[in-house]
Amino acid sequence: MNNFEFHNPVHLLFGKGMISKLNEQIPKDKKILITFGGGSVKRNGVYEQVKEALKDRDLTEFWGIESNPKVETLRDAIKLGKEKKVNFVLAVGGGSVLDGSKLIVGALTSDEDPWTLVRNGFVPSTIPLGAVLTIPATGSEMNNGGVISNKSTAEKFAFYGTFPQFSILDPTVTYSLPQHQLACGLCDTFVHVMEQYLTTPNQSKIMDRWAESILQTVIEIAPNVLKDHEDYQTRCDFMLSATMALNGFIAMGVSQDWATHMIGHELTALHGLAHAASLAIILPGTMRTLSKQKSAKILQYGQRIWGITEKEGDDETKIKIAIDKTEQFFRSLGLHTRLSEENIGEDTINEIARRFEERKAHFGEAANVDGNKAKEILNHCL
Amino acid sequence: MNNFEFHNPVHLLFGKGMISKLNEQIPKDKKILITFGGGSVKRNGVYEQVKEALKDRDLTEFWGIESNPKVETLRDAIKLGKEKKVNFVLAVGGGSVLDGSKLIVGALTSDEDPWTLVRNGFVPSTIPLGAVLTIPATGSEMNNGGVISNKSTAEKFAFYGTFPQFSILDPTVTYSLPQHQLACGLCDTFVHVMEQYLTTPNQSKIMDRWAESILQTVIEIAPNVLKDHEDYQTRCDFMLSATMALNGFIAMGVSQDWATHMIGHELTALHGLAHAASLAIILPGTMRTLSKQKSAKILQYGQRIWGITEKEGDDETKIKIAIDKTEQFFRSLGLHTRLSEENIGEDTINEIARRFEERKAHFGEAANVDGNKAKEILNHCL
Repeated sequence: MNNFEFHNPVHLLFGKGMISKLNEQIPKDKKILITFGGGSVKRNGVYEQVKEALKDRDLTEFWGIESNPKVETLRDAIKLGKEKKVNFVLAVGGGSVLDGSKLIVGALTSDEDPWTLVRNGFVPSTIPLGAVLTIPATGSEMNNGGVISNKSTAEKFAFYGTFPQFSILDPTVTYSLPQHQLACGLCDTFVHVMEQYLTTPNQSKIMDRWAESILQTVIEIAPNVLKDHEDYQTRCDFMLSATMALNGFIAMGVSQDWATHMIGHELTALHGLAHAASLAIILPGTMRTLSKQKSAKILQYGQRIWGITEKEGDDETKIKIAIDKTEQFFRSLGLHTRLSEENIGEDTINEIARRFEERKAHFGEAANVDGNKAKEILNHCL
Repeated sequence: MNNFEFHNPVHLLFGKGMISKLNEQIPKDKKILITFGGGSVKRNGVYEQVKEALKDRDLTEFWGIESNPKVETLRDAIKLGKEKKVNFVLAVGGGSVLDGSKLIVGALTSDEDPWTLVRNGFVPSTIPLGAVLTIPATGSEMNNGGVISNKSTAEKFAFYGTFPQFSILDPTVTYSLPQHQLACGLCDTFVHVMEQYLTTPNQSKIMDRWAESILQTVIEIAPNVLKDHEDYQTRCDFMLSATMALNGFIAMGVSQDWATHMIGHELTALHGLAHAASLAIILPGTMRTLSKQKSAKILQYGQRIWGITEKEGDDETKIKIAIDKTEQFFRSLGLHTRLSEENIGEDTINEIARRFEERKAHFGEAANVDGNKAKEILNHCL
């Protein structure tokens, strides 16, 4: 196991009706900026619950943080927050609203342009952030990271710095999510785990098993998440899995990959693909390209997650089956798993390779995913 | 899943050499009381590392917090801390030093007698606490609970209130632990998980699997923990498992039992049995007594942890095998699993039943472990 430090101070409030506890979480003297997405919270009752809980408070609303939140939109929110002199931000939405709000709290006490802050990679904040989560997917509700897009440059970068003080997770608010968003949430959760798990074996027995636990749970609940939209227990396991997949709990002392995410971010930046949609395409390609380097862990994954035994054949065969099962799982969610299905081809591959070379990228647990390797991975996704 | 709140603010620093980071964790202006056990830290190098890390700091040492820490001893530590006007406590030791120090920080700013504070059940503190852990077992390094004994009344009670701000876990400091302490640490970890797991099934797929992950890991590493005293990877998994077994990570939204602990505390209070030694005796008795109530979860446990399949027979047989396997595991660690091996019999059983009745006890996930049920459990441990 590698040496590590772990510190996750987020206060989770989980379960049906927990939005009613919102008022107690925010000190009385705070001037609150509430950030929202496109308006689905007005249709699913979340907006009403939030307004009811905070009915006597000093509130300013900002609407319109889009998926893959754009720095252009966030500049408007930051301007509004500064004008109103807010000193608390409450994000009400999914991972994009959360990520955008992490940049907002950082920028509210800074004179720098927010894109400069993102490119610094670290955006700490003195203004606290709270969250009411509406989409299980990114884990942003219990980590200190965010990913922001720049429309004008077609770029997308991650930054770190702010944990929410609290996050409220009520699984019933997911009942109204459309099928594609549920599929993306399941896929996002799955790939977050894989980025922290599918590296080298024998680093930590307990971390391996906790990662596998989330994969097994996501695979087990996926059909019912998509079928029965009001099965509370299933939605509880879904929401908890998504949060636990990216809050540091499965990353203690183990190496991590994240090459799939880095390539996926480029697909989103260049073509507007949903984040999880990009991951469903790239992960199988990453596994194929790096199947030798990752062979021992893919074999463990195949055996423990998909029950692939010696009977299936030699190691090469078992690895192939494990990768195919992964791709099939994403397809079973209704997601595309090939670039060609998105009409993405050589031009994009070359541009991503060029960007990686320009940035001297070296992603993955072996720090060997550069422009050439990214091209190889993308060619395996055609 | 039940509604829950989760908040664990402890900063973990884990790995070889991490004690050297101690100085950065404590603000410069603090007057520090360092609390120790009986002196093993002088033999294993921990004392020297701590003194070296804090060489320019204002330190007061208190020695002699015994296992099952006694309020009588802690009164002396509290007196010393008040005299020296300390405003930070650093616990250097195992769970007993940690638990005792949680009471010390609470009592340092109170005029109440510390036993009154323990009996209140909640002892919050304004004085921060840090820890350098030397024994993987209790999980006290990452939770807000403690258990204190009263020598004069032969009682033992738990209280809550203070998380350490940070805990430093260096697995190499466990290399010198004696065999019995290792066995107790493994058993303690195992039973902590069982108290949060062996209740009713289908509450949370992810929590079930995380609990099972720790059980599987403890069973897998136990032989090597006892055999190879300097296997770093094994000690990493041991230390991390013990911490993860009682820090709330496997308790989200699920019911808990703790009847075994409550009965075990009485054995310690009346006979001085090591905490884990009491658990190794009581848990199989609890499982036998409540095998009908817990049948569905014992079957899941038997199948997932011990590989007990349909081939073994009917449910009753499978449950019996699962309980026998549990007892055999404790015996494989070199621990006793029967009251008769400790020369404990009817008198003690009657006294524990009497105490439970007097306190109107109703422990366990079904709140049905009262004096009579405790007697039944203890009779199953003879």
